[in-house]
Amino acid sequence: MLTDLEIAQKAELKEIDEVASSVSIPDKHLRRYGKHVAKISHQYLSELQDRPDGKLVLVTAISPTSAGEGKTTTSVGLAMALNIIGNKSFVTLREPSVGPIMGIKGGAAGGGYSQVLPMEEINLHFTGDFHAISLAHNLLSAVIDAHIKFDNELRIDPAQLYWPRTMDMNDRALRQIIVGLGGSANGYPREDSFVITAASEIMAIVCLSKNLVDLKERLAKIIVGRSYDGEFITVNDLNVQGAMATLLKDVLDPNLVQTIEGTPAFVHGGPFANIAHGTNTLTATKMALKLSDYVITEAGFGADLGAQKFLDFVCPVGGLNPSAVVLVASIRALKLNGGASKKDIREEDLSALEQGFENLKVHFENI
Amino acid sequence: MLTDLEIAQKAELKEIDEVASSVSIPDKHLRRYGKHVAKISHQYLSELQDRPDGKLVLVTAISPTSAGEGKTTTSVGLAMALNIIGNKSFVTLREPSVGPIMGIKGGAAGGGYSQVLPMEEINLHFTGDFHAISLAHNLLSAVIDAHIKFDNELRIDPAQLYWPRTMDMNDRALRQIIVGLGGSANGYPREDSFVITAASEIMAIVCLSKNLVDLKERLAKIIVGRSYDGEFITVNDLNVQGAMATLLKDVLDPNLVQTIEGTPAFVHGGPFANIAHGTNTLTATKMALKLSDYVITEAGFGADLGAQKFLDFVCPVGGLNPSAVVLVASIRALKLNGGASKKDIREEDLSALEQGFENLKVHFENI
Amino acid sequence: MLTDLEIAQKAELKEIDEVASSVSIPDKHLRRYGKHVAKISHQYLSELQDRPDGKLVLVTAISPTSAGEGKTTTSVGLAMALNIIGNKSFVTLREPSVGPIMGIKGGAAGGGYSQVLPMEEINLHFTGDFHAISLAHNLLSAVIDAHIKFDNELRIDPAQLYWPRTMDMNDRALRQIIVGLGGSANGYPREDSFVITAASEIMAIVCLSKNLVDLKERLAKIIVGRSYDGEFITVNDLNVQGAMATLLKDVLDPNLVQTIEGTPAFVHGGPFANIAHGTNTLTATKMALKLSDYVITEAGFGADLGAQKFLDFVCPVGGLNPSAVVLVASIRALKLNGGASKKDIREEDLSALEQGFENLKVHFENI
Amino acid sequence: MLTDLEIAQKAELKEIDEVASSVSIPDKHLRRYGKHVAKISHQYLSELQDRPDGKLVLVTAISPTSAGEGKTTTSVGLAMALNIIGNKSFVTLREPSVGPIMGIKGGAAGGGYSQVLPMEEINLHFTGDFHAISLAHNLLSAVIDAHIKFDNELRIDPAQLYWPRTMDMNDRALRQIIVGLGGSANGYPREDSFVITAASEIMAIVCLSKNLVDLKERLAKIIVGRSYDGEFITVNDLNVQGAMATLLKDVLDPNLVQTIEGTPAFVHGGPFANIAHGTNTLTATKMALKLSDYVITEAGFGADLGAQKFLDFVCPVGGLNPSAVVLVASIRALKLNGGASKKDIREEDLSALEQGFENLKVHFENI
Repeated sequence: MLTDLEIAQKAELKEIDEVASSVSIPDKHLRRYGKHVAKISHQYLSELQDRPDGKLVLVTAISPTSAGEGKTTTSVGLAMALNIIGNKSFVTLREPSVGPIMGIKGGAAGGGYSQVLPMEEINLHFTGDFHAISLAHNLLSAVIDAHIKFDNELRIDPAQLYWPRTMDMNDRALRQIIVGLGGSANGYPREDSFVITAASEIMAIVCLSKNLVDLKERLAKIIVGRSYDGEFITVNDLNVQGAMATLLKDVLDPNLVQTIEGTPAFVHGGPFANIAHGTNTLTATKMALKLSDYVITEAGFGADLGAQKFLDFVCPVGGLNPSAVVLVASIRALKLNGGASKKDIREEDLSALEQGFENLKVHFENI
Repeated sequence: MLTDLEIAQKAELKEIDEVASSVSIPDKHLRRYGKHVAKISHQYLSELQDRPDGKLVLVTAISPTSAGEGKTTTSVGLAMALNIIGNKSFVTLREPSVGPIMGIKGGAAGGGYSQVLPMEEINLHFTGDFHAISLAHNLLSAVIDAHIKFDNELRIDPAQLYWPRTMDMNDRALRQIIVGLGGSANGYPREDSFVITAASEIMAIVCLSKNLVDLKERLAKIIVGRSYDGEFITVNDLNVQGAMATLLKDVLDPNLVQTIEGTPAFVHGGPFANIAHGTNTLTATKMALKLSDYVITEAGFGADLGAQKFLDFVCPVGGLNPSAVVLVASIRALKLNGGASKKDIREEDLSALEQGFENLKVHFENI
Repeated sequence: MLTDLEIAQKAELKEIDEVASSVSIPDKHLRRYGKHVAKISHQYLSELQDRPDGKLVLVTAISPTSAGEGKTTTSVGLAMALNIIGNKSFVTLREPSVGPIMGIKGGAAGGGYSQVLPMEEINLHFTGDFHAISLAHNLLSAVIDAHIKFDNELRIDPAQLYWPRTMDMNDRALRQIIVGLGGSANGYPREDSFVITAASEIMAIVCLSKNLVDLKERLAKIIVGRSYDGEFITVNDLNVQGAMATLLKDVLDPNLVQTIEGTPAFVHGGPFANIAHGTNTLTATKMALKLSDYVITEAGFGADLGAQKFLDFVCPVGGLNPSAVVLVASIRALKLNGGASKKDIREEDLSALEQGFENLKVHFENI
Repeated sequence: MLTDLEIAQKAELKEIDEVASSVSIPDKHLRRYGKHVAKISHQYLSELQDRPDGKLVLVTAISPTSAGEGKTTTSVGLAMALNIIGNKSFVTLREPSVGPIMGIKGGAAGGGYSQVLPMEEINLHFTGDFHAISLAHNLLSAVIDAHIKFDNELRIDPAQLYWPRTMDMNDRALRQIIVGLGGSANGYPREDSFVITAASEIMAIVCLSKNLVDLKERLAKIIVGRSYDGEFITVNDLNVQGAMATLLKDVLDPNLVQTIEGTPAFVHGGPFANIAHGTNTLTATKMALKLSDYVITEAGFGADLGAQKFLDFVCPVGGLNPSAVVLVASIRALKLNGGASKKDIREEDLSALEQGFENLKVHFENI
């Protein structure tokens, strides 16, 4: 059996121009990153306002297990299947972090014959979205410390800062640090931490922002800490939203790639589902809805977390109206949820499987 | 008088394909980043081996002043002038850091009617080279701390580590930090620091590497610290060079842009001239030499530092053989070196000017 | 009404020789600290082995309140009363910390006409017991870090150290610190903390040790942390018990003072009742039992904590056999335990008082 | 040959009362610490004002060597000799640190048959002077951090604090630390350090203070740092001098001990000679001058440092007027200063000896 990587490497990809024209995206809105990746200007969405939306299908799953559940694979496969039977379909997914990929997990672009490609580009730097978000995030961090160092006009209390630093890297040594050492030239020491870029508040903001104006407004409202007087300090107080938005200007544009069968796919935005809302950018989903009959999207973690956030938060905020929900429940995940141990997961175990259906039932009822 | 930005925005740029074909770069070696930026595969250089080299002109300057000296402007202007009088010319420059740009300095792409464009892309994330270098650098940092935490088989002495972390940001609070706090789950506390990406050893390595094999070999030789027994620990000992090189694979490809008059320009690699060698990648310069009659390149800081490193280190290492050296000496820089104060720099001051010629004389003699 | 301090200053004290001879302590066992304080050699106890013990009375209280409960005042008063009616009596109390005294709390030597004196000496450096314990404690801390720095033969894991540093000072800034900074000359950085001397394990050990041999054995058994291999590291492994015991050699000798009426009192040892056993040294209590008919001693906190530890731990370890327990329940403490607020505590509040009796009842039943 | 310790242990000491009465110190000014140590009230000095001073002899030495120079041994021996030939003599010396004693150096109470005794008491906690100074020092440190934490009314800049913490222990891990970690309950993190008690500014102050009023005034003038506005912050601003003086009240009283032949000796105060003035308390020297014909005192380090500070600073400040200076120059020290290596120091080496006289000559000329 071929590995995911081997399958990916054997795949014959269309040029991205061909994928774009298959859904009639005009060339002027296309910004190429090599032959198989392009950003589509988020401003294109406003030109599409009068078109009707396609149907939105949410893919979610039963309780997550360490073996993975197959949401991405199902989403990609479903989009390809709808396409083959004559519908125009689109799949919209989250971008993977580089950091964790270098570590434990495999990529986050599906598997087997149900992948989005080009795998390597998507899994490495891709179109630089995560890098830009990291830099905008850390620019704010640097400005906060510089403000405190240089007279601290806003009276920011260094002991009440909520804004960490970020890096797209699973680096435990940076989880709890002290910054600002080395004497007064480097400012005031304080306890700080690095979070992974997917956990940056800016990642969540990017996924919800309609355009640069909206982005700047949302950035301006970020609360970075409190003053000595107990009042909230916002990005607006520091007046950094403009510089941050400049660094983020290309990040709002959805990244167009394709499935292994050439179905168009947006892979755009990657907020964590536990601390944020866990779905790709609204812009990508909304643009895909204008460009196709069916859009398959997925929400992170199990239905209780990801689907709930999608249905109760993302949909109202973005004006989305899903037509169907797919609840993925692989035999393997059912058995694990039913009490089977991971090492015996390849053995037949009907009892664990039956127990696992309890989990499925509750998720089903919730939806 | 128009500002640099206004001039840049008014400029009508050729599509990057047109720039590439003006020097006959085949499409298959072109990787587009939008309409006006492309990476040229570094492997293209080997196809060009049999062509004769053009002439190499080094632009350097008298002792640097806070007002800038005009090396980049001269380099760009010279390339454009040579082009207009009928020569095929190329200019090769260093990539600017994002971080410092957000802070104090203006961009590093020339000025007035002597710029390389598109200004905004070059000055912001460009083709992601700095991001990739940062990530590869920090991957190594994370692996070092993880190695120490998990049994430390190599007996790395945490008090004798030379490998910092890096960020493309002028962030004083990160200059001296403590990492690894928060109990044993996060490893062992140690004093650490962040350097700016331009100061990363990987930046220097990238600028000297011929191809991925060479890059990997150079990465493997990096000394990260010492063991408790006093022996050097290298990247090879940690066996991370492969993962680092994967993150760096596109970084070796020169970034093709154009001057305001459409002359081809490589803006590629940006090591500091004080702690490293301070010139763009060897690959960019060597490829440009194969593609044109004249290649104008610049070296950072004054002639005593930048030109000396170029002539005595970069040229022998890269097999370069400069045909001419341009020594930039603006009236303003001469006056400042002659003792004039920066605030009176617009006043006529023949005495300071005369004094400044002493500086010019020494640089001239040295070369 | 006179303050405690005024009463203390007006009191006419006996010379400590007179107090000592009132209970027939031979001069050779007396080590004077000024006119009103002396240490009695702990070795004197062995000379007294054949004498019968007096009766031991434990003073405890209902649940502690912020207003204090009056255990010390009751203990001192009871000893004085027994003395006046013709019994030879002794009171044995804990030594107060200097640090907290300079801060919030008043001294810990009783109040009003029921004090032990000389107040100032007892409340300040006294006979240096806390200083010696601090120094012995910190000697061990210094040896641990020095051992790790110099080759770490025992393979001590700096992330698994349980031994803090100590200071007889309420200093919040020292509660969580990082030590060992400044490069390898100062060792390896690690997270550390200072505890108050009363919380030092050595304080508890001193209060239980019979003599220098016993002390050294107990010190040797202190577990300071774990090795990289998970094994416990003891003081014995570091072989510091001898040096520590040298610093502690006078600490074992009970401190003789007097009540305001000249009744002999031992004020000796001061372990916290929450984290340790909360009573004065066994040596002081046992020596007092040999020297008088009645010994009044107290245990820290409420009966559920202090008395329980005294009866179930201190008595079996020390071979003590209390004849009576006094349960102190002031009207004020009853009212506070009954729900009265501290600011209205001087108002009559029979309902709160009645409620407070519930608290008394449970403590009574427990004993 | 007997060791210093064996000689000390065999010595038959006079009771301290006998030593005191040999120089007619009235009992009321005597505060005993066991049988062989006493503090003499510093107030006794004012009763002695009308008596004429004895002659003051300063003992200094050639450049210090790692083998020691013998100043203390010479001082003690000289005092004993003067006594034997019928003069009333006194020796005044510095108190040794406990910390360093536990570490490298031997005690600081002379050697051979020229010691002050009781050795063990002097070398360990003695009369608690160092402990009291440590505590007063650290009280100020704690108050500074608490002040900053609680609203920082004085606007103290935590990055401009000059007041370290102190411990009477050679503990490298405390040389450079970070305090105030653990969140805002513990204040604001800052870089701090522990110095050894002998290096505390309070040690120097104690050695110069005439009485409690003078002490309090000197403490009040200590500069602990600067405000955000660049102004000096003093102890007076924090109003801690009273509490500090309370902790130091007994420290002003000279410690009376005896030489191995019963000659009276004050061992009192121990400031470093490199960073402070390096001689025992003025009070001890001045009181000794009132009580005897000859007072032998020593100054730390070589004549260029210790004697110079003594003659040019301590004498004018204290109104002292030395009658003679003894310049100690052992053969061993001469040889080491003449270039002999320490390991061959027991070999005859007339050439090195001759060279060493150069050193002696310069010190001699200076004095």
